[in-house]
Amino acid sequence: MEKKMKNKILDLIIIGAGPAGITAAIYAFRKNLNFVLIGAERGGQVSKAFTIENYPGFLKISGLELTEKFFNHLRGLKIEPLADEVVEIKKKEDLFKVVLRSGEIFQARSILVASGRKPRTLGVPGEEEFLGKGVSYCVTCDGPLFKNKPVAVIGGGNSGFEAALYLKEICPEVFILERGERVIADEENQKKAKEKNIEIILNAQVREIKGKDLVEKLVYEDLRTKELKELEVNGVFIQIGGVPAAAFLQHLVDCNQAGEIMVDLKSFQTKTPGLFAAGDVIDFPYKQIIIAAGQGACAALSAYKFLKK
Amino acid sequence: MEKKMKNKILDLIIIGAGPAGITAAIYAFRKNLNFVLIGAERGGQVSKAFTIENYPGFLKISGLELTEKFFNHLRGLKIEPLADEVVEIKKKEDLFKVVLRSGEIFQARSILVASGRKPRTLGVPGEEEFLGKGVSYCVTCDGPLFKNKPVAVIGGGNSGFEAALYLKEICPEVFILERGERVIADEENQKKAKEKNIEIILNAQVREIKGKDLVEKLVYEDLRTKELKELEVNGVFIQIGGVPAAAFLQHLVDCNQAGEIMVDLKSFQTKTPGLFAAGDVIDFPYKQIIIAAGQGACAALSAYKFLKK
Repeated sequence: MEKKMKNKILDLIIIGAGPAGITAAIYAFRKNLNFVLIGAERGGQVSKAFTIENYPGFLKISGLELTEKFFNHLRGLKIEPLADEVVEIKKKEDLFKVVLRSGEIFQARSILVASGRKPRTLGVPGEEEFLGKGVSYCVTCDGPLFKNKPVAVIGGGNSGFEAALYLKEICPEVFILERGERVIADEENQKKAKEKNIEIILNAQVREIKGKDLVEKLVYEDLRTKELKELEVNGVFIQIGGVPAAAFLQHLVDCNQAGEIMVDLKSFQTKTPGLFAAGDVIDFPYKQIIIAAGQGACAALSAYKFLKK
Repeated sequence: MEKKMKNKILDLIIIGAGPAGITAAIYAFRKNLNFVLIGAERGGQVSKAFTIENYPGFLKISGLELTEKFFNHLRGLKIEPLADEVVEIKKKEDLFKVVLRSGEIFQARSILVASGRKPRTLGVPGEEEFLGKGVSYCVTCDGPLFKNKPVAVIGGGNSGFEAALYLKEICPEVFILERGERVIADEENQKKAKEKNIEIILNAQVREIKGKDLVEKLVYEDLRTKELKELEVNGVFIQIGGVPAAAFLQHLVDCNQAGEIMVDLKSFQTKTPGLFAAGDVIDFPYKQIIIAAGQGACAALSAYKFLKK
């Protein structure tokens, strides 16, 4: 593949088109920086959220709608995100070189990584085999296919509960399987799940996903009794968090045990001068749209300060 | 005044009804906490912003409209902010006692301070005398009164430029006076100001505001030549930042030189366990709506963690 090197040196390259990257772009625009916003996934994980009720200003909005609002904001400022993926970042003296999947190469004096997280997988037999045939990581995308069928959601966090609440509107039976001794979702979500008769199975470790052409059942171990049990379901929605999408810059940053990028929480700068990070990809206890957006703004303002020095 | 002590002990008291406090309330609600949101000023400084173009999701929205959206969000969750002011916080063992201007007293196991900032004053002769007679700290509130009149804005930051850009739509002559050698507003704002022929006067230290019944002129010193100069204006809008509204809890927190509350930037906890702070009131380099909102969410989630321990 021919590599096309852009001759112009940019002020800033923003990687990731989720809440952190989008907000960073809005702020970079206001600071009149010469920048590009690169993101393969429009809206990032937001686009996969079913209903969002905690982004202030919108009482209740779907992930797709909020993504649309964010992209309208960018469009209004004439910011055109580049739908591509970063495969490599190199630093030479004071310049960063970013290589994209398409072969394009950009150069810039600073980088802002807001590449978020990818869904975590269970790593059990059947998971890969039945992907798209009953196994899914995205209720918003695939939920409607399971209308009137029994389904299971793996994971007792907020995303698991939100997935289950949505599924319960269209499926007769919805189970939540949680490996731990209790669920960690918001009490509000727990209350709703109870009202809707969603069945929560604790201490349940998924061991296998089975079927012929499509998923037919789920095998899990009861961690207290060590007994293997089966659930007859046609859909398995895996909602057990994510892994940071930061593989392409391990050589330039320090990461915590979960692989999240360490930053200074005042400047959002990594250990490499000029390299900033924000949002779900960083070492920070909370992963929330409004928090990622705020961090994106901070990182962009810090990049601006860095560039003007 | 009779003091009314509430018998019930709350989980959390949120102080301040700006972006940080409002977001904290949304998150506290989702965590099913027993809390109250106290704020004398609906929306805080947001309500005074003329046009907001950097809150993701809204390309262009007035401060009053965004405040309305935030309050609609609260209303949708049946959260009713209490329009009152905190005059005192005491801590006794593990309990906080909060005394309000009205005499009401609340008790809670944790506190989240999001009381923001008040406008900074110049401290020059005429400033207090002509308040409401030509001197103002809020363009959104008072701007329309100065239609077709010459006005000056004091302060070359974003709020100064935004004030001037708005005023220029209705006033023939608009000056921006900046004490420093250059302005610090966004380049985008600087570009617009240039296009609109707003006159920027650098090295200008305001010395006096003069008039009979109403403001007639502004006296400033040119800091390079030490010369006193006069500007004939009828309106003086002072936009030189703010002072943190944290006087009521000095005994429980550490502050920086600017009087801003020091917090741990992962938990947003102050030096007092159970006492959290977020938004413009804290020691943080950037004061932005989206950043304050994100911090409010973090602080509320940390308060929840603290309460569940």
